[in-house]
Amino acid sequence: MIGFPGIEDLSVSTPSKIVMLVADGLGGVAHPEKGRSEMELASLPNLDRLAKQSACGRTIPVLPGIAPGSGPGHLALFGYDPLKYFIGRGVLEALGIDAPIRDGDVAARGNFCTVDEHGLLPDRRAGRIPSAESMPLCQLLDSIEVDTAETIVLPVQDYRFVLLLRGEGLSDRISETDSERTGALPLPVSALAPEAERTEVIANAFLQRAAEVLHDRDIANMVLLRGFSKIPELPPMGKAYNLNPAAIAAYPMYRGLAHVIGMKVIPTGHNFDDELDTLSKHFDEHDFFYIHYKPADAAGEDGDFEAKVHALEELDKRIPRLEELNPDVLVIAGDHATPSIMASHSWHPVPMMIRSSLTRGEGIGEFTERACLSGSLGTFSAEHLMLQTLSHAGKLSKYGP
Amino acid sequence: MIGFPGIEDLSVSTPSKIVMLVADGLGGVAHPEKGRSEMELASLPNLDRLAKQSACGRTIPVLPGIAPGSGPGHLALFGYDPLKYFIGRGVLEALGIDAPIRDGDVAARGNFCTVDEHGLLPDRRAGRIPSAESMPLCQLLDSIEVDTAETIVLPVQDYRFVLLLRGEGLSDRISETDSERTGALPLPVSALAPEAERTEVIANAFLQRAAEVLHDRDIANMVLLRGFSKIPELPPMGKAYNLNPAAIAAYPMYRGLAHVIGMKVIPTGHNFDDELDTLSKHFDEHDFFYIHYKPADAAGEDGDFEAKVHALEELDKRIPRLEELNPDVLVIAGDHATPSIMASHSWHPVPMMIRSSLTRGEGIGEFTERACLSGSLGTFSAEHLMLQTLSHAGKLSKYGP
Repeated sequence: MIGFPGIEDLSVSTPSKIVMLVADGLGGVAHPEKGRSEMELASLPNLDRLAKQSACGRTIPVLPGIAPGSGPGHLALFGYDPLKYFIGRGVLEALGIDAPIRDGDVAARGNFCTVDEHGLLPDRRAGRIPSAESMPLCQLLDSIEVDTAETIVLPVQDYRFVLLLRGEGLSDRISETDSERTGALPLPVSALAPEAERTEVIANAFLQRAAEVLHDRDIANMVLLRGFSKIPELPPMGKAYNLNPAAIAAYPMYRGLAHVIGMKVIPTGHNFDDELDTLSKHFDEHDFFYIHYKPADAAGEDGDFEAKVHALEELDKRIPRLEELNPDVLVIAGDHATPSIMASHSWHPVPMMIRSSLTRGEGIGEFTERACLSGSLGTFSAEHLMLQTLSHAGKLSKYGP
Repeated sequence: MIGFPGIEDLSVSTPSKIVMLVADGLGGVAHPEKGRSEMELASLPNLDRLAKQSACGRTIPVLPGIAPGSGPGHLALFGYDPLKYFIGRGVLEALGIDAPIRDGDVAARGNFCTVDEHGLLPDRRAGRIPSAESMPLCQLLDSIEVDTAETIVLPVQDYRFVLLLRGEGLSDRISETDSERTGALPLPVSALAPEAERTEVIANAFLQRAAEVLHDRDIANMVLLRGFSKIPELPPMGKAYNLNPAAIAAYPMYRGLAHVIGMKVIPTGHNFDDELDTLSKHFDEHDFFYIHYKPADAAGEDGDFEAKVHALEELDKRIPRLEELNPDVLVIAGDHATPSIMASHSWHPVPMMIRSSLTRGEGIGEFTERACLSGSLGTFSAEHLMLQTLSHAGKLSKYGP
């Protein structure tokens, strides 16, 4: 169950069309010297105009004070309780590189590390070796063979890689090998449940072979494995909401996440303009579109205030392309805030708006964190955004007689 | 348990008096051309004056984005979690016509439909035949006798009626007969649990006899039954809150609902003026009064913006009659919004205010959706309104040492 008890019976399929734009890392925090946030300093004439005709508010991604990763941040926007439903780190990392992960695979986030002659860890990240150096090492690891399972190693970036364990009856209930302490030994993998004992043996066999093939190196001569996880079974979003939902995202991780919750992932290009082209081309084929805008988050993560302002202005310029399609409901939201002054995801409530035929008489002066505070929707849990969205689209019946 | 864990021990009986006016369908939405809501366009001098001396806010009836029926909308106002406690459609329909429903009866919402020579449904509502035509048909159905249970049929309006099944050991765990598809056969009743098998037989026997007595007719020659339900066992409100609560409502359904949660229902007349007379007359007898105002909802449901403005103004004129009684706490709230531009119940947060001796120094400029957004109570779950109310009346002790 997602969204609401009995949502399958309350939601109705109608011809109305919903576009939900997720501006990753949308919200920010006022700069200590400027006294204004990125959204407040950016020139956003199109978003401001939309806000004047929209029901506005702010979403809390998980709980007040909790900064979410991209997984929980997105799951909540689609109505999945982020405390109940979880996509593990290994799986998310695999999805992020378009890895050929299958149901039943156990994925781990791996990284090269350096061990001394006693096997102790002077450097948990192997000097953050660049991709050029780690790529051939990943190929070496990928050639490892262990009994009763296939092991696949795929490079991510720099010192990071993904390990996939593939075989019958594998379990992700095994412990991580990174003790998170320099000078300690890497930990062996341990089964956390009886059904994981065979997977423990497989993972430790892989680690043993990895130590052997990397043995002659001075640095990056061992690996650490974290976040063992399988693709979780999540209730399909389309079934819950009686929708035919589609995802358009240039970044693999967001496509992967959408796939996991049962959205149709429409192939697209490498940037938001490509995504908009894809949306236009396929607009007749679905009643719900999730479209993802990444640059605001990337700039925020870099701690680059001006770049985030610019990323928001670039988004604003493209808003008319969404309006041209004339969706019945246009939602603009974010999965979490990424304040430039923090250079990371944050817990701050995220500005949002819903425009529909029901909201033309209301609105707020501009689309900013501060202005959205006085929007009619107030501050609410992101998990309820889909309910608001479906209701505005006339796709949700009354609860109870 | 309703309201709060251990509420029976926290709540204390005191002489202070509470009046809770529920203005049905109170809130609305800004008209797309006027840019203002019904409350904003209405002249409400008395409510505005009260709002200046009240703790104001907005209630969310169930969850953001969920439009409630009258049942969940009211239950929440009285502190009952509307996802946990539920009054079925058949029961609510029976209460709405003051039907003599008893504990243990199974009530269904019935309607006449038309079947063709193959038993298929060309018209699920029998051309919405008027009451004049359905009344004698209801009498025919009421005369049906089946083994081991009494069957009672009471007209509601037009093509709708209520069926009561009365007897020992009946269960409401039986399925509906309306497939909600034109051209299909009506469904037989099926037991949804082993204890409902006998009730299944009784309901199907009634349907069989109904088909026989209506057989010669061209239209309205069959019936559909939905929402089988019994009066639920709800914790009595008076016991939970240490109150002696009374309900004054001109419309039967609201009286019935109040009765189900253990309020004393005081007989009254046919409109709000009658209700106010009743309130004055019995003001000494109870410490909590629920009084219901219907016309705002009715006008909203009709999609008549001007009529809703008028209904609100008529309510406003009568506010001094409530003030004259000088209740220690006066609550003005709504069970849900009924925006005229939607002509239906909606999910929008509902304006509310609480006036007590503690709120004379605060307040907001006027009683509207927008102004209540900046009221001191903020936007909160309707389920917590009773806690606020009791606290303002000095009837709720501190929780924990």
